[in-house]
Amino acid sequence: MTILSELFSYAELERILSEESWIQGMLQFEAALAKAEARAGVIPPGASAKIAEHCRADLFDLTLLAKQAARAGNLAIPLVKMLAEAVARQDKDAARFVHWGATSQDAIDTGMILQLQEALGVLETDLQRLCETLAALASSHRATPVVARTWMQHALPSTFGFIVAGWLDALLRHRRRLLDLRPRVLALQFGGAVGTLAALAGRGPDVAKALSEELKLSLPTAPWHAHRDRVAEAATFLGLVTGTLGKIARDISLHAQTEVAELFEPSGDGRGGSSTLPHKRNPVTCAVVLSAATRVPGLVSTILAAMPQEQQRGLGGWHAEWETLPQIVRLAGGAAHHLAEMLPHLEVDAARMSANLDTTHGLIFAEAVSMALADRMGKIPAHMLVEAACEKARAGKRNLKDVLREDHGLHSHLTPADLEGLFDVRNYLGSADEFVRRVLADAAEFPRIA
Amino acid sequence: MTILSELFSYAELERILSEESWIQGMLQFEAALAKAEARAGVIPPGASAKIAEHCRADLFDLTLLAKQAARAGNLAIPLVKMLAEAVARQDKDAARFVHWGATSQDAIDTGMILQLQEALGVLETDLQRLCETLAALASSHRATPVVARTWMQHALPSTFGFIVAGWLDALLRHRRRLLDLRPRVLALQFGGAVGTLAALAGRGPDVAKALSEELKLSLPTAPWHAHRDRVAEAATFLGLVTGTLGKIARDISLHAQTEVAELFEPSGDGRGGSSTLPHKRNPVTCAVVLSAATRVPGLVSTILAAMPQEQQRGLGGWHAEWETLPQIVRLAGGAAHHLAEMLPHLEVDAARMSANLDTTHGLIFAEAVSMALADRMGKIPAHMLVEAACEKARAGKRNLKDVLREDHGLHSHLTPADLEGLFDVRNYLGSADEFVRRVLADAAEFPRIA
Amino acid sequence: MTILSELFSYAELERILSEESWIQGMLQFEAALAKAEARAGVIPPGASAKIAEHCRADLFDLTLLAKQAARAGNLAIPLVKMLAEAVARQDKDAARFVHWGATSQDAIDTGMILQLQEALGVLETDLQRLCETLAALASSHRATPVVARTWMQHALPSTFGFIVAGWLDALLRHRRRLLDLRPRVLALQFGGAVGTLAALAGRGPDVAKALSEELKLSLPTAPWHAHRDRVAEAATFLGLVTGTLGKIARDISLHAQTEVAELFEPSGDGRGGSSTLPHKRNPVTCAVVLSAATRVPGLVSTILAAMPQEQQRGLGGWHAEWETLPQIVRLAGGAAHHLAEMLPHLEVDAARMSANLDTTHGLIFAEAVSMALADRMGKIPAHMLVEAACEKARAGKRNLKDVLREDHGLHSHLTPADLEGLFDVRNYLGSADEFVRRVLADAAEFPRIA
Amino acid sequence: MTILSELFSYAELERILSEESWIQGMLQFEAALAKAEARAGVIPPGASAKIAEHCRADLFDLTLLAKQAARAGNLAIPLVKMLAEAVARQDKDAARFVHWGATSQDAIDTGMILQLQEALGVLETDLQRLCETLAALASSHRATPVVARTWMQHALPSTFGFIVAGWLDALLRHRRRLLDLRPRVLALQFGGAVGTLAALAGRGPDVAKALSEELKLSLPTAPWHAHRDRVAEAATFLGLVTGTLGKIARDISLHAQTEVAELFEPSGDGRGGSSTLPHKRNPVTCAVVLSAATRVPGLVSTILAAMPQEQQRGLGGWHAEWETLPQIVRLAGGAAHHLAEMLPHLEVDAARMSANLDTTHGLIFAEAVSMALADRMGKIPAHMLVEAACEKARAGKRNLKDVLREDHGLHSHLTPADLEGLFDVRNYLGSADEFVRRVLADAAEFPRIA
Repeated sequence: MTILSELFSYAELERILSEESWIQGMLQFEAALAKAEARAGVIPPGASAKIAEHCRADLFDLTLLAKQAARAGNLAIPLVKMLAEAVARQDKDAARFVHWGATSQDAIDTGMILQLQEALGVLETDLQRLCETLAALASSHRATPVVARTWMQHALPSTFGFIVAGWLDALLRHRRRLLDLRPRVLALQFGGAVGTLAALAGRGPDVAKALSEELKLSLPTAPWHAHRDRVAEAATFLGLVTGTLGKIARDISLHAQTEVAELFEPSGDGRGGSSTLPHKRNPVTCAVVLSAATRVPGLVSTILAAMPQEQQRGLGGWHAEWETLPQIVRLAGGAAHHLAEMLPHLEVDAARMSANLDTTHGLIFAEAVSMALADRMGKIPAHMLVEAACEKARAGKRNLKDVLREDHGLHSHLTPADLEGLFDVRNYLGSADEFVRRVLADAAEFPRIA
Repeated sequence: MTILSELFSYAELERILSEESWIQGMLQFEAALAKAEARAGVIPPGASAKIAEHCRADLFDLTLLAKQAARAGNLAIPLVKMLAEAVARQDKDAARFVHWGATSQDAIDTGMILQLQEALGVLETDLQRLCETLAALASSHRATPVVARTWMQHALPSTFGFIVAGWLDALLRHRRRLLDLRPRVLALQFGGAVGTLAALAGRGPDVAKALSEELKLSLPTAPWHAHRDRVAEAATFLGLVTGTLGKIARDISLHAQTEVAELFEPSGDGRGGSSTLPHKRNPVTCAVVLSAATRVPGLVSTILAAMPQEQQRGLGGWHAEWETLPQIVRLAGGAAHHLAEMLPHLEVDAARMSANLDTTHGLIFAEAVSMALADRMGKIPAHMLVEAACEKARAGKRNLKDVLREDHGLHSHLTPADLEGLFDVRNYLGSADEFVRRVLADAAEFPRIA
Repeated sequence: MTILSELFSYAELERILSEESWIQGMLQFEAALAKAEARAGVIPPGASAKIAEHCRADLFDLTLLAKQAARAGNLAIPLVKMLAEAVARQDKDAARFVHWGATSQDAIDTGMILQLQEALGVLETDLQRLCETLAALASSHRATPVVARTWMQHALPSTFGFIVAGWLDALLRHRRRLLDLRPRVLALQFGGAVGTLAALAGRGPDVAKALSEELKLSLPTAPWHAHRDRVAEAATFLGLVTGTLGKIARDISLHAQTEVAELFEPSGDGRGGSSTLPHKRNPVTCAVVLSAATRVPGLVSTILAAMPQEQQRGLGGWHAEWETLPQIVRLAGGAAHHLAEMLPHLEVDAARMSANLDTTHGLIFAEAVSMALADRMGKIPAHMLVEAACEKARAGKRNLKDVLREDHGLHSHLTPADLEGLFDVRNYLGSADEFVRRVLADAAEFPRIA
Repeated sequence: MTILSELFSYAELERILSEESWIQGMLQFEAALAKAEARAGVIPPGASAKIAEHCRADLFDLTLLAKQAARAGNLAIPLVKMLAEAVARQDKDAARFVHWGATSQDAIDTGMILQLQEALGVLETDLQRLCETLAALASSHRATPVVARTWMQHALPSTFGFIVAGWLDALLRHRRRLLDLRPRVLALQFGGAVGTLAALAGRGPDVAKALSEELKLSLPTAPWHAHRDRVAEAATFLGLVTGTLGKIARDISLHAQTEVAELFEPSGDGRGGSSTLPHKRNPVTCAVVLSAATRVPGLVSTILAAMPQEQQRGLGGWHAEWETLPQIVRLAGGAAHHLAEMLPHLEVDAARMSANLDTTHGLIFAEAVSMALADRMGKIPAHMLVEAACEKARAGKRNLKDVLREDHGLHSHLTPADLEGLFDVRNYLGSADEFVRRVLADAAEFPRIA
């Protein structure tokens, strides 16, 4: 666990993505392979048990492994050699059946898929937590008025609940994507040196089936050594998720600006404060999430660029995945985790949200007035009248409502009560509430994980 | 149609992705909106028909539109203005209802989704053509021996049919992904200025439903203006497809090298030849496809990087999609199309594939011999014997079979016929044929489009 | 000129980067080659003149060229063939010497370098304009107080001139980089089929020298067909420039937010306004520049990813540059141009800048007070005293100065006048003015282009 | 040192880029700052010495630091706090002057620049080693004939020395770039909270000058907190270098294919071999370098995408650099190092290079014959004659020379000796040797580092 890992990721995810876990995954592959081959009658049952005993990462000298892997250009070659030696010290016959019929890529890829399986599991949990928090937030702020901003400018009134429901809606789509891709991505890799399982004569498919059952991974139609769309699909999915997390963080950071002051990340305990700048509430989690959203796209492009791998095993492209995929998982998972931890403590200043609606002295209601008048006096005249009033309000630094109140041309179309109503936020929220309702219903129906 | 468009894309796709088509898509949105609003009783039916009449891109002055769009930072603002003016020249009342309750992003996004819908359609057709060609090729070369190469080195024998089946298997996964994402991605955008459909009072959802039916697009739970995961999912999917196409092209180009000479792109008619270098058969289609596979990853990263769009409408991020997404579609679609056009004419030199198996003078069968001997004399002794024989073969520049034939230690374990059999490709193909069968079965079952 | 080209680029740059200009550049190469070869006595002088006559893009059928280029995978092959045919119609002997000893890549690359030369010229002009505008702005707002913001939170007072000087300083570094790279990047490509100029026997270097003089390009040590660092250096430089332009646009857009309201892009004439949302001043130029800053990084990564080109001419990598490099030039150049056009009209609300300093009710001066007290009562006690006062100010929603004024512990250390001075912006600007002076001096000394 | 670090990087570089080194760099900044401030009379000389004593990374609890940094979103805040506490335990007065007038970004950035300074040093050494090895190789193979290949097809004869000189020429350009960028990139960061050095009153520039001298870094015109072009320039430079290294590795891997067999990476000692596939010589170093060339472009795009940092300190963009820049340095530096280690042991099979020239049965000399005949019988007839002969040779699977020898139309133009000469590689190498000479001269003149 390094300093920046603590910042951008978190301990459990770092453990899942560690080299030790990868090696353990490879050893898990080797143990399951022996078991599957024993089940299929390819190797003696006794050998299987003895091999399995040695498949524990903590029994290996990782420093020595590092040196040999660098020479071999590959982790599995020296690992399998060490495993066979360890087994041989106990049982020479059993040692013959270590890694039987498999190739190094089988172990390396399957090990990585096992890590991915675990990592997608913790991500799913964090996405669910995020959805639960956002659903609660959307629900409690369903009627909280807020300025909706486009092009970083005030546009119209909206509700904070509606904004949050938009975040939630996007996350629900990601959770749906995750359900779709799991069986496709979490698939066994097992093909032998060139994908034909030649060394197993015709027994390959049977062993593969048993092996996929052992490891609880999908059984692919055929080995997929140099076909990296599964790995790349995981990467692009994580890219999509991080983009949405980045959008949420971008929004929060804009709402949290000193002049806006509508949202605040929790403070205290060394979080985002500054002793000499006491007014600061640095949105630290937003920075972490935005940093992930800045980094993941380039990493995803690496995985895509690495896809055209040569022939039956690529040269460089495959290697390019080894550190890149875990980085993507770590940044996406870290961002989801930190946001899931922070969001329940997000401070919402509903009063300030309301107050900010007045920043433009009523101009934010110009469209509402315009639409109401259009029905009564025609679109063009309505528009001209309102435009003139806005100009007058701006020039005189007055509130638009006051200017309109004085406009005699308006009196035959709108009563003072009508006018008052047009400047009431609640009357120009359109279907915000209905959309919140629909998103919350979707969220409620989404299958929960335990 | 520019020169490079002809090279990297093709006329139909360029038409679909042209600015004219985008504008036509926006106008199609405006026409459908008027119709949906008339159906919902929001605007008069007469206005709807009159608006629809003017929704034809060829009626607009695109040069003027360009100038105004540059100032507005947005295509829809001047387009809607021009449309309203055109309608007004015919019917002032109808003109009032142009774009009623919508925002420019509704038109721009929906227009783009309509283009995407059409483009994914032609891509699907090309993917299906590719699959059919590859299925035929895998089938006819199911028993054609070929060298399988890993790390750009000879590894073991395989069949060309098995290699082709690997390409096919990946493309089938992409077609499955396309089926999954269509309803999620091809969704209506309709939310009004800030997503609340405020200007339609409570009628927004009804209009949205009618509008989605008019346009044959999915109805989303809520408007998704600044939530770009749909667009980004399309981009990443196309990135995955292009990666696989690049892998196929990479493989073909390697098989087509002068020294390898197993595959050839079709020649003639100015294709890839060189008058002064008559021996050249430049793999032009491979170059085009590899070029797409080099370019698309960076473009996908742009779409992902643009996701954290500010608040209710982004500043710059949204704009970054406008040229990038069409580029991705064009390169992916162009690569699929050019490969689909070329592959039926790919020349396969099966004799040369066979001959190349002898390049290593029998060393490619060392594993087969090793595995066979391991069963009879134990793995370690077998391995040592074979290793020594290989060394001898290499040193003496002789064929491994000949060296082994002279090895007396071997005679008690293998008959001359056994030895002969071990150097027969057909005996060391493992489950290649079974995997081809499975992939072809999957392909046959895949739902065809008309 | 397309609609989006008008938005993201501008007419002159589009002309420079058009396919027509590229073809004209290739023809310029062919004309200059003939001339250089005539000078070197390699071809007859008469042939040279006759070839040159035909080297005009407007004489060629570009539609036919497009079709043939798509088959050849290359623009120069059909172009040279057409050129030779055209010359042959006039003079068969001269036609023999068209493209003598050159390869298609020589023409394509040199044509592109000629475009780059012209495009870097207009970029340089825009960078100079930007620097002049920023120098004037830094100078006139040298003493204009403004809030300096870190982590999107108020931090300390600064001057707007100092902020502008930071933008200027970065642009000056880019102009320096441009001077450094020009001779390295703007180099002739001329090597014949494989870089050896074999067809010119030993005369290649002489012809190359004459040719580089004709075209006013650097003469490289050796041909550089598959060595793309020159092209990539141009791309990365433009990436750096766009990053800085994006930073300036990001800043302006933040200053332009409705709640901040310190800067405004010019409005009027359809620029960034909205008729129904009259309070909006959409920062259109910022959107364009930020869009470029979002897109260029992925495009630069493409150029870098394309660098490992195979052997003596790459397959796909080279092709990947053909549309990507112009895109980068166009976005970087477009961003520079639009910013250079807008900045002279940027509205600065100095009064609002001053007013915003009060947003935190004096807390922004806490550090100034702390530092002043530290000198008199020790750092720790000073810090504790100020911290307590800040807490009190925040809790009571009072101004920090008022709270401090009542603090008896302070009276022995600070007179009321001292206290007043500590809350005067001018007394806590550090060396802002000196840094502005230095940057302006650098700018004044920078060599101007005519 | 992890397993993959051993593979993609190497121990010394990992040490330079470690978090410990970064922290040490920050502490080095703090020590130098205290010294510079004492020199400038800003803090007492005694305090300076006492602070410096504690500026050793090994005195800090890095686990605690990690936890606090994650909360602060920043390494320097807790580090400075710990440093001040440590100094205070010894001398409370001195502790007051820790980090005096500086901001966390000053320490973080300068610490990173110090790492970069050291890392660029070891890279420069490896680039020099590479150039020396390549110069020797180009020199010794200056006359070794080899096939030049374009589009992955045989094109014309060349020399291996010329190919190597192309690699060398590109690396020399990179070394020149490195000399250019050093003073610009290796610059002090020192601006205090918002760049004005407010806390130092007017003494900031003096302290900055002394500080830059202490650290042997350039003194910038002004602080550059949110202006990241310096950092990004380092990243893009490393991107360019890695692209060239990737090109060299791509070439070697193509020459090393089983059918080509012209170049071999060294083997033995677990390097790239396979016990069951004894004919394999996996080009492990090429894989590592190509992997870097696949990964670095995406990482560079991240650095560029992170450039538009908000206002006076960015939110997320700055954080995005912290792990990305070291990754780029590590991959570029690792690739250079591994290639520099391997290249002196590269095996060149000159005989095979010669033999491969015959693969096309003389067709590779078609252009030479064509050019020679063009001089004597006109370009068109020459071309037609040669084209027909090539066709005949291909159809009859005969050598072009033999076919031409029988062509009576040729006898009046070429003697048998002429014909023989045209099929002699040495007569169609153009200026290959001259270009090698020029590149070697450049290399010899390049300023050596000790």
